[in-house]
Amino acid sequence: MLENLKEEVLRANLDLVRHGLVIFTWGNVSAIDRASGRVVIKPSGVEYDTLKAEEMTVVDLDGNIVEGSLRPSSDTPTHLALYRAFEGIGGVVHTHSTYATAWAQAGLEIPPLGTTHADYFHHAVPCTADMTRAQIGGDYETETGRVIVERFRRLDPLHTPGVLVKNHGPFAWGRNVHEAVYHATVLEEVAKMAFVTKLLNPTAGISPSLVEKHFRRKHGPEAYYGQH
Amino acid sequence: MLENLKEEVLRANLDLVRHGLVIFTWGNVSAIDRASGRVVIKPSGVEYDTLKAEEMTVVDLDGNIVEGSLRPSSDTPTHLALYRAFEGIGGVVHTHSTYATAWAQAGLEIPPLGTTHADYFHHAVPCTADMTRAQIGGDYETETGRVIVERFRRLDPLHTPGVLVKNHGPFAWGRNVHEAVYHATVLEEVAKMAFVTKLLNPTAGISPSLVEKHFRRKHGPEAYYGQH
Amino acid sequence: MLENLKEEVLRANLDLVRHGLVIFTWGNVSAIDRASGRVVIKPSGVEYDTLKAEEMTVVDLDGNIVEGSLRPSSDTPTHLALYRAFEGIGGVVHTHSTYATAWAQAGLEIPPLGTTHADYFHHAVPCTADMTRAQIGGDYETETGRVIVERFRRLDPLHTPGVLVKNHGPFAWGRNVHEAVYHATVLEEVAKMAFVTKLLNPTAGISPSLVEKHFRRKHGPEAYYGQH
Amino acid sequence: MLENLKEEVLRANLDLVRHGLVIFTWGNVSAIDRASGRVVIKPSGVEYDTLKAEEMTVVDLDGNIVEGSLRPSSDTPTHLALYRAFEGIGGVVHTHSTYATAWAQAGLEIPPLGTTHADYFHHAVPCTADMTRAQIGGDYETETGRVIVERFRRLDPLHTPGVLVKNHGPFAWGRNVHEAVYHATVLEEVAKMAFVTKLLNPTAGISPSLVEKHFRRKHGPEAYYGQH
Repeated sequence: MLENLKEEVLRANLDLVRHGLVIFTWGNVSAIDRASGRVVIKPSGVEYDTLKAEEMTVVDLDGNIVEGSLRPSSDTPTHLALYRAFEGIGGVVHTHSTYATAWAQAGLEIPPLGTTHADYFHHAVPCTADMTRAQIGGDYETETGRVIVERFRRLDPLHTPGVLVKNHGPFAWGRNVHEAVYHATVLEEVAKMAFVTKLLNPTAGISPSLVEKHFRRKHGPEAYYGQH
Repeated sequence: MLENLKEEVLRANLDLVRHGLVIFTWGNVSAIDRASGRVVIKPSGVEYDTLKAEEMTVVDLDGNIVEGSLRPSSDTPTHLALYRAFEGIGGVVHTHSTYATAWAQAGLEIPPLGTTHADYFHHAVPCTADMTRAQIGGDYETETGRVIVERFRRLDPLHTPGVLVKNHGPFAWGRNVHEAVYHATVLEEVAKMAFVTKLLNPTAGISPSLVEKHFRRKHGPEAYYGQH
Repeated sequence: MLENLKEEVLRANLDLVRHGLVIFTWGNVSAIDRASGRVVIKPSGVEYDTLKAEEMTVVDLDGNIVEGSLRPSSDTPTHLALYRAFEGIGGVVHTHSTYATAWAQAGLEIPPLGTTHADYFHHAVPCTADMTRAQIGGDYETETGRVIVERFRRLDPLHTPGVLVKNHGPFAWGRNVHEAVYHATVLEEVAKMAFVTKLLNPTAGISPSLVEKHFRRKHGPEAYYGQH
Repeated sequence: MLENLKEEVLRANLDLVRHGLVIFTWGNVSAIDRASGRVVIKPSGVEYDTLKAEEMTVVDLDGNIVEGSLRPSSDTPTHLALYRAFEGIGGVVHTHSTYATAWAQAGLEIPPLGTTHADYFHHAVPCTADMTRAQIGGDYETETGRVIVERFRRLDPLHTPGVLVKNHGPFAWGRNVHEAVYHATVLEEVAKMAFVTKLLNPTAGISPSLVEKHFRRKHGPEAYYGQH
């Protein structure tokens, strides 16, 4: 079932290592087949260098295991909450990449400070609110998805394809799993650049029209970046 | 004697290099065979790329050389003090990894700031007290072990599997030597994240219930991370 | 047409990756053949690992495509503005390298603080002015070239072979494309050193005669560095 | 002439690249044969990947070329000044490694903050005084050696085997060229650790008896580190 998607998800997991975003098992990638509503996700706690495509777990949007003998990533309910709420997305990535995680630990959104940010994120990369004791003590991973979705009530998830979960780390997504990994990588680089920028100049900012220009250069009807 | 354990200790030493935790001979790993009370440890000042399993030194818990023609690591008495005091541990690692050492030099414990920390360390990573002139002038390496053990008087070493020796660097441990290397690697990453976090937001903190949740997700009877 | 130059531009693009200056497609390199007035430039949005020399686009100094089936880099008009204004240059490089981009995002020029800087840059690495809404909304990439040229009105581009475009990132150049890549690499390293220096000592500076000495040691009639 | 020493100097130059201390041609290594008073040094401006042992230049202690068709490193007079003043040294290394250079640009000595420092440097790594306009305008590289030697008037160069030349970068040395490279690598790591430490805790310090203990553990009659 979904053998091609499993291969893509495996490759995406290995790309996290290649891009320096994860060590050990600190990350997970999933992809959804929108036609069948099935989600392919990495099994929990399996090391990347021994991971095989056929070991991927397949679940439905309610979290029932449809295929696979290994338990899915413990963050699966968060992925599912995102797929249910954000209809346009096809892949989700979670990492503990150093600089994005540090911004999440600082409890701060990453402000737009340059065109590198604006090329991919239309606004600040938001940081979720503190979770309540009830949310933490309840169905924690589903609640994590809920605070993300809540934070995006007035944001377009395809225009801001990532988030910082407070005191935890980044989630990123895209129209497919390849784009999700791409955005997770951009997010880490943007987080590092913003860190260095803020130490050099705490009052640094950017004009809204420059952000708009760069975002529109790559996205929407007037885009003229790349080959079309 | 203990040929398998020697192989494991050799591999663990090489893993320190692979994870970027040591340069030159700046680190040492040991493992204990609890049945016989014998400890396998890296010889002193030997470079990693020429190190062989059969060159490992075997000592008893009092530091007497039981096998091996090379002098054991000069930090051996510290390792032995930890094995004597912390009954549940099977491996010990000492490095001078950059960020953990910097926190040790700053004389500061690493506070829990995120779930990356809480997944492995139940509390702050503690920093030992200043050693007295008498301790430094006496049996220095044994005294180093003593200040660590003293610092853990009210801490469970398996729930906080690492420490910063003030003005020196980190020691980490685990139920076996593989886990000890794992914790030393986590400690360095957590130290780097906490450094970036504190520069972004000096008052950053984390709610105790989130720490508790993540620690319990991986440890203890209710753990549900990984394959069981 | 210009097959050798295409090979050089391809190699220069790959060198950006090798020197750690770009990820994905975040950079572009061009070279000019001054005899014919033709510019060879990387196509837009093509990944480096599949890039071939014969895919390079050839344009004239007005931006008309002379050869090639792929659209040239969207930054082409900026490159052309530099070739038109700076007669002595033969290659141009644009990257989003981390530290140079952070200085650009901070809106600060990189001050000369050491001989590493002075060996290649006679003065501070300048930062351009904010672009107006009209410039951003107009022919944006040509206007980007214009603010750079404006910033160099009283500077010799061969003595200060790079610039920070505010809130965007660095452009660097040289007498040929190899030198342009060299200067982009130096600029990133100088940006990192200056960042660390300013955090250690916000009032750090350098004597003008030391800058002069090092610049003259490598450039001009009295140069005595290297083999001549 | 001195073919073995040339091989050692070549290998030492390549080690600078391997340890991440230099890019391009930004470093030079020399070794002295004390019996003949001949110094082997890297030629000026030659890239490391094409460098051959037989291309090394041989000079006497007055800087006269004894063998070799390439001009020696432009820093040769600084190396020679060190060999003339510090009788116990056999190798000298100059780099522009990032963190050590940043401390030099900040005009600050690197204070001892931990045992990593004390294991190799008995005191702070000193920073030279500003050079006067006369020194800069005169025989600059010889004067650079002179300010180093002046700074060491009350220091033992074998107990403090490195220095920061203000606004320039580090020089390190040792009893032979291998040890000189080792000390240059330690110096860079110590510089990075001290940077992170000072940002975490600006008032961090270390007790003199701990410095003394660690230095004596590796050096002098009571040393007990390594195999003897």
